[in-house]
Amino acid sequence: MLLSHNTGAFAVTTAPEGFSLDDFEEVGLRTVERRFSPKDTIFAPGDPDDQLYFLLTGTVRLYKIYGDFKEATTALLKNGGIFGKLNLVEGRWQNVFAEAVTEARVASIQKSSLEMVIKRDPSFALKLFSSFSERLRQSDEVIESLLHREVSTRLATLLGNLGDRFGRENGSGTLIDVRLTHQDLANMIASTREAVSKVMSEFQREGVIENRNRRIAILDRTTLTEHASRLSGLSVDGQTSI
Amino acid sequence: MLLSHNTGAFAVTTAPEGFSLDDFEEVGLRTVERRFSPKDTIFAPGDPDDQLYFLLTGTVRLYKIYGDFKEATTALLKNGGIFGKLNLVEGRWQNVFAEAVTEARVASIQKSSLEMVIKRDPSFALKLFSSFSERLRQSDEVIESLLHREVSTRLATLLGNLGDRFGRENGSGTLIDVRLTHQDLANMIASTREAVSKVMSEFQREGVIENRNRRIAILDRTTLTEHASRLSGLSVDGQTSI
Repeated sequence: MLLSHNTGAFAVTTAPEGFSLDDFEEVGLRTVERRFSPKDTIFAPGDPDDQLYFLLTGTVRLYKIYGDFKEATTALLKNGGIFGKLNLVEGRWQNVFAEAVTEARVASIQKSSLEMVIKRDPSFALKLFSSFSERLRQSDEVIESLLHREVSTRLATLLGNLGDRFGRENGSGTLIDVRLTHQDLANMIASTREAVSKVMSEFQREGVIENRNRRIAILDRTTLTEHASRLSGLSVDGQTSI
Repeated sequence: MLLSHNTGAFAVTTAPEGFSLDDFEEVGLRTVERRFSPKDTIFAPGDPDDQLYFLLTGTVRLYKIYGDFKEATTALLKNGGIFGKLNLVEGRWQNVFAEAVTEARVASIQKSSLEMVIKRDPSFALKLFSSFSERLRQSDEVIESLLHREVSTRLATLLGNLGDRFGRENGSGTLIDVRLTHQDLANMIASTREAVSKVMSEFQREGVIENRNRRIAILDRTTLTEHASRLSGLSVDGQTSI
């Protein structure tokens, strides 16, 4: 398969170093730090777009509502992630939901003050670039997974990407260190919980993944990558052409 | 409809100002300028990832091959667009195709020299941010359109976005100033030429769009937005749940 999910390429991408409150203080930026509990909404569509949000600790997901009020998770961010509308110019309003997945600390900064800081502190600018490109890479991953027709391909692509981003080597495999229900996974690949559960069972029977204490562990990365590349003959229910 | 394609929000987003050769010379950056004809490949998966590419003039599309060698256009760039892997760190290789749609002039810059320039010239950094966020916005649009089930919804979303980006007010409507076949449109919404042709005919019969000299003109933006929001009852063939 020529292109599909190329694990090799991910390894080289520099992870964003992540922002700390110190970074903002050093450049004289006034930040507002807020703490959120799991399921708390950080912002919603219609809220003003005048700030950038920096995830200091925790996990946050961005999601949209589409069609008949179905949810689609378009990004899952961890420490150092950046969110809000990623231009430096104030816009009118947010068009996604941002929700805390775990306990989360978030620093928000007025866009109006960012331009000044970038001019003053190039190393801050470089960090900001790093976070931006990480987000763009994640969007590309979402696009990649949505293009594929079969749920198994989408899901394998997603699990591989989550493994790269949230993975922790752990004995016999890679533990994806964030708790995700089958509904959560379905929201990330625009599928249904039922279809996801079916494929997850197949993956488990094949020994590709296993559940460990309500988290997913990838046991056989090679086979997972084959599913992502659609090299496998695994056949999954009545998915038709999109 | 709560969210879907919110045209209002796009109007406020500042378009990237676009880079000219002067911008690079001013900051002492060595650029290589190359010229491409329509259909020329600028780079392909497997080519080294050591440069950022700036589209000086023309239109360029980025695409991936997925599934059974189907093409998916993931971005359509015009003057001022930026492409290549958008981190500032050299990676291993490209994972998309970049192809000239029109005659195009492209400046390429070694990533290794960009960090230095950002540190030296904050206004260059700001321009770069602007291009990055424009790309991220476009990725979000692609995700948005892929989420929707029906071809009519996807296509209406796409046409609206193309109107925002490539539109030129022209008498009775907005002319999308780039030549696109039905196959091109299908590649942008992961559908088939046949399904796109069918919906395009319906849109034409409804007076939402028309063909002008092999380009698409949007005549009725309100109805198009309604289709994008799935407020309309337009029913399109046998698309099933994705």
